[in-house]
Amino acid sequence: MSTLKHPGTIHGVGLGPGDADLMSVRADRLVRGARHVAFFRKKGRPGQARRIVEGMLAEGAVEFPMEYPVTTEIPLHDPEYNRILSAFYAECAAHLRALAERGEDVVVLCEGDPFFYGSFMHLYTRLSPGVPVEVVPAITGMSGAWTATGQPVTWGDDVLTVLMGTLGEDELVRHMASADALVVMKIGRNIDKVRRALERAGRLSAAWLVEYATMPNQSVMPLTQACERVTPYFSIIIVHGQGRRP
Amino acid sequence: MSTLKHPGTIHGVGLGPGDADLMSVRADRLVRGARHVAFFRKKGRPGQARRIVEGMLAEGAVEFPMEYPVTTEIPLHDPEYNRILSAFYAECAAHLRALAERGEDVVVLCEGDPFFYGSFMHLYTRLSPGVPVEVVPAITGMSGAWTATGQPVTWGDDVLTVLMGTLGEDELVRHMASADALVVMKIGRNIDKVRRALERAGRLSAAWLVEYATMPNQSVMPLTQACERVTPYFSIIIVHGQGRRP
Ligand SMILES: C[S@@+](CC[C@H](N)C(=O)[O-])C[C@H]1O[C@@H](n2cnc3c(N)ncnc32)[C@H](O)[C@@H]1O
Ligand SMILES: C[S@@+](CC[C@H](N)C(=O)[O-])C[C@H]1O[C@@H](n2cnc3c(N)ncnc32)[C@H](O)[C@@H]1O
Repeated sequence: MSTLKHPGTIHGVGLGPGDADLMSVRADRLVRGARHVAFFRKKGRPGQARRIVEGMLAEGAVEFPMEYPVTTEIPLHDPEYNRILSAFYAECAAHLRALAERGEDVVVLCEGDPFFYGSFMHLYTRLSPGVPVEVVPAITGMSGAWTATGQPVTWGDDVLTVLMGTLGEDELVRHMASADALVVMKIGRNIDKVRRALERAGRLSAAWLVEYATMPNQSVMPLTQACERVTPYFSIIIVHGQGRRP
Repeated sequence: MSTLKHPGTIHGVGLGPGDADLMSVRADRLVRGARHVAFFRKKGRPGQARRIVEGMLAEGAVEFPMEYPVTTEIPLHDPEYNRILSAFYAECAAHLRALAERGEDVVVLCEGDPFFYGSFMHLYTRLSPGVPVEVVPAITGMSGAWTATGQPVTWGDDVLTVLMGTLGEDELVRHMASADALVVMKIGRNIDKVRRALERAGRLSAAWLVEYATMPNQSVMPLTQACERVTPYFSIIIVHGQGRRP
């Protein structure tokens, strides 16, 4: 009966943009103390969240890699894509729930901040409120990216808009034209569309491309100098605001 | 001559939203090791950044409080406001530059992320590139706030827009109506205008008010239940996105 009375806690732990030194003190403590560690990854890849904590896990920590069943084979708007992903998240959540019900705490490693476009959210909505879930916020990839540019991103009453490269071109243009500062994430194969949208919105010449922010292979360049570039998954475009500055 | 060859570094250190446990490992190390610590505060107040590091400073650390010369006495758009603030920042920067030129490292304590609507930016532009300046990104107040609501802020390709309560009502409405997820900062005395704008944009019923996110006196409530409330400086309004979620 005690397992019913004292379930374990699932910790959704944000690890920040990539550099382990940018993890919060709380995240650092939870990761080092964890007996069960779960993380998402693409099949055949180590996984970025797991990579961040390399060398930090306790001896004997049990790892639970959650491998995405689809990546880019099925188009995003195919209902089949949703069905497969949904079943995958349900299965992962069931495993974590079973651990918690046995009284085990679990640390789920999350890139960046868990509640900001994170995969952990799909587990969170399936686990909470039935299972105790605690979320540790973290430094976002975009904070890592604008810091890497060496320029403040927003001043005074600048409006900042965060856009996903997966949006349609016209929608991108509309938002790009009406905000002061811009962040564009999930670029990858959308780079050409994003570049066209920035051009149409008159923002291209002010755009910076940051790859692998705060990671060993970080690169920062004006987007106009990245013409033929194939941008990796960990890429963010930043357009700085130019607001009031005494 | 060695002082010319080895200037100290000014570290703009983001401390996160308020809970010292949410500071990064790097920030924690820099704060504890600092011999010179500078921070902004309002006259007669301890200052939020200084409060976060209470109990962490090394014995003998030299503190340099930078006290804002104006708060709310002069209207924001009066040129006099800008002139006074600009002179104040120049004076603070000169003091830090002098320390750096003597070979001293200085940690400037910053609430949240330094490059995200932070006061440190005004020192940064005056010091860099003449003086070595390093910026440590941090968890933003808004990450602390959306985590406190217990709901993810953005899903799929949701558009997130960050607005300052100091903007005009019509501009607020326009942005509130066109984004999926919303963050409104710098609310304080702008609360009635912000509430009217949310109402006009059809977003009021979905808005949450978070005061003092991650601090001991944190409060989270639907904005519609905060009618007569006088909101403090550390208040953020969150409207969650409702995007695609498998
Ligand atoms: C699924 S979202 C996850 C966002 C994450 N939860 C956060 O708080 O930053 C993945 C996108 O985040 C961006 N990203 C996250 N970390 C990054 C980094 N260190 N460098 C560049 N891009 C990053 C990329 O645009 C990537 O496509
Ligand atoms: C000058 S801005 C500084 C923002 C900071 N650099 C950051 O990254 O969050 C001040 C505004 O931040 C917001 N804020 C920052 N931390 C907060 C917290 N812990 N709780 C509520 N609001 C906060 C409030 O809206 C406040 O008016």
